[in-house]
Amino acid sequence: MRNTVPVAGNGLLDRRAFLRGGAALISGYIVQPAAAEPLADAPWSKEPGMLVPAYGVPSSHEKAAARMLSNPKGEPRTQHARTPHHLLQGMTTPNGLHFVISHAGDPDIDPQMHRLAIHGLVKRPLVFTLEALARYPMVSRFTFVECGGNSAPLFSPEPVQAGVQALHGLASCAEWTGVPLSALLEEAGVDPKARWMVAEGADAPHLSRSVPLAKALDDAMIALYQNGERLMPGNGYPMRLLLPGWEGNMNVKWLRRLELTAAPAMTYYESRTYAPILPDGKAYRFYFLQEVKSFITHPSPGLALKGPGFYEISGIAYSGNGRIAKVMVSADGGATWAQAALQEPVLSKAFTRFRIPWQWNGAPAVLQSRAWDEAGNVQPTRAQLVALRGQASRVSAPTGFPSQHFNGPTTWAIDPAGSVRHVYA
Amino acid sequence: MRNTVPVAGNGLLDRRAFLRGGAALISGYIVQPAAAEPLADAPWSKEPGMLVPAYGVPSSHEKAAARMLSNPKGEPRTQHARTPHHLLQGMTTPNGLHFVISHAGDPDIDPQMHRLAIHGLVKRPLVFTLEALARYPMVSRFTFVECGGNSAPLFSPEPVQAGVQALHGLASCAEWTGVPLSALLEEAGVDPKARWMVAEGADAPHLSRSVPLAKALDDAMIALYQNGERLMPGNGYPMRLLLPGWEGNMNVKWLRRLELTAAPAMTYYESRTYAPILPDGKAYRFYFLQEVKSFITHPSPGLALKGPGFYEISGIAYSGNGRIAKVMVSADGGATWAQAALQEPVLSKAFTRFRIPWQWNGAPAVLQSRAWDEAGNVQPTRAQLVALRGQASRVSAPTGFPSQHFNGPTTWAIDPAGSVRHVYA
Repeated sequence: MRNTVPVAGNGLLDRRAFLRGGAALISGYIVQPAAAEPLADAPWSKEPGMLVPAYGVPSSHEKAAARMLSNPKGEPRTQHARTPHHLLQGMTTPNGLHFVISHAGDPDIDPQMHRLAIHGLVKRPLVFTLEALARYPMVSRFTFVECGGNSAPLFSPEPVQAGVQALHGLASCAEWTGVPLSALLEEAGVDPKARWMVAEGADAPHLSRSVPLAKALDDAMIALYQNGERLMPGNGYPMRLLLPGWEGNMNVKWLRRLELTAAPAMTYYESRTYAPILPDGKAYRFYFLQEVKSFITHPSPGLALKGPGFYEISGIAYSGNGRIAKVMVSADGGATWAQAALQEPVLSKAFTRFRIPWQWNGAPAVLQSRAWDEAGNVQPTRAQLVALRGQASRVSAPTGFPSQHFNGPTTWAIDPAGSVRHVYA
Repeated sequence: MRNTVPVAGNGLLDRRAFLRGGAALISGYIVQPAAAEPLADAPWSKEPGMLVPAYGVPSSHEKAAARMLSNPKGEPRTQHARTPHHLLQGMTTPNGLHFVISHAGDPDIDPQMHRLAIHGLVKRPLVFTLEALARYPMVSRFTFVECGGNSAPLFSPEPVQAGVQALHGLASCAEWTGVPLSALLEEAGVDPKARWMVAEGADAPHLSRSVPLAKALDDAMIALYQNGERLMPGNGYPMRLLLPGWEGNMNVKWLRRLELTAAPAMTYYESRTYAPILPDGKAYRFYFLQEVKSFITHPSPGLALKGPGFYEISGIAYSGNGRIAKVMVSADGGATWAQAALQEPVLSKAFTRFRIPWQWNGAPAVLQSRAWDEAGNVQPTRAQLVALRGQASRVSAPTGFPSQHFNGPTTWAIDPAGSVRHVYA
């Protein structure tokens, strides 16, 4: 019975239970004795199956595993497509379900015609075709991309009744492969006066952002591949800027220009859209880092518990500062905590899946997670964030977006019927 | 000029060149000076783009990134869908392009109706619904799956004129998430007399294979998720057996039964289809491991070089025995060798991307890679494999498949025009 010893209040079990297999926790109520031999054949076992296609797509029974669209008819405003974290597992977001924000739809770029220019404060301005870029040495890395506005509903005065997809679906993680930007900048020859780089997309709004040159020379990449294949149209095909750990929109998609400058360009997107107003009236601007965050995906709203018994609590943690060091989970609203297991490999600036076994006794429960990164940062409380940046519901914000960069904990309340609801605690 | 010092014959460069950015290697012939300011707008930069879909698919310009189908009309025989390694990068195979072999098409399984039975030499026979399985503690791991017949054309007496997709496209790598089989077997209670486990699929042929119980209790998994989302229909939806590092067909797809037995079942698939005849007339059977292998994907046939200059040689290495320890690359047909860089993370029984910079002087070149795993195994030569198992072209084999488990090196010859051809060397 070693595995069933609680390690924190309200049924959290030793995290090693899952490493040992968790035997005997579930027997008796979710398995049934085998009835008869041989097994009966279902209809699909009696006839030839479907044609294997040249490009595979999910089963027709998985229609629910879709991105939530904010603007499904493509009206002339921003389109958001949110990742269904409650239906996913592991650390990889499959390419079909990676989140997308497009301010004027996804441009349909002909890769043969597309060009990337590097100019401004450089010794030799350069223009690259996709074919030229593909000649350069490449690197691969798993990294998350997250919109600065992800999780913003948690600044709302009352908990928005929504699930993990609506609240946190503007973050995803993939293996990106491309050319280190430092190699291209070395080729162009950086002028010593350069301090910033203005990155511009080939989409109709020409989304552009100013990036400190230090980041461009650090771990920035011109990404050409996403989970092995060429970028998805919504993720910047044929190329995007990748700034691991930094605000999503700075990872400029459909990248066509990098202009080196002495000062930031104060573009529309950095001065207005992605610059929320703080309580003191100043703009929250040039704050690039996506800080340490975590949330529980299983269970979460929409995934009701089917009676008392064993469940695995599972979720995602990540930090723009590096690796996740620790995730603590509470089942009693923060009164007591237990350490979750982290799924290897734990990679810098990538999603890390955490898991902890839980014996639900059928009473009300309040689930939370809290993550630490290797730099020692921990998720702040919601109260701390609200004190710094105010409360705002998305619709009531006077200018543009309400506060962004929410990285406090998310709380799920479970009622005796097993349904899961978003609460503050 | 430190980066351009050759480290092996015919232009192989220091592998650290790519870590340092490889500057100055490419300038002068694959970049063009920026012509004018501002950049001209392409048509897609002047109007709103495409609708962001609920499930993303690749750009219409990427039609070539498709699986090669052996039986595109689904005639009543096996269908093979091969991964286009020459068009991919990194270590992940995207779900749409993971290889598939279906002996009678992909069954269209209703996940609500599907059951997995564990019975035979167990204390308690059990039947699991998908929902029940999803309650168990899960694990994730990146691992390759490879058909035992992958690379079999290299047993042909003459080099088959084909590319890396046709020769090696029956291997892919994904992040799989599911329930450790050991947990379910512990729940069922293994009878001490059990030594084997017969795994059976719900496809029409009921493909079944005998698996030593030791493997089932080691790192076997009932996989439910592939790169984050539910399994693709061709990869076993809604569940498959995953036996990391072992012959592809043993990773039984559409899994419906695990019967514990004292002896192997000598099924059709293990006695005939996946049991090639050796030169001495005996069957090559119950050889499960996919041994250490590597091949160069860039350049490879179909990816012609565009004139002399800098290129990155890149490929994939993997071993069913564990991690890749080292990959050596030759540009002169094996006369001299240089060590390639391995892309982190290097994971056990997963694809590892290797890369090395190369300065092509325009003369004929002969490219090869050779990999070692952490257990000290190295790829044998083709001559060694042929001596053990004979030569056989696929069509000439008298019974079933010709020799399988080819893991020797693959050689690409480059002519002065830059075209790439499969040769033996």
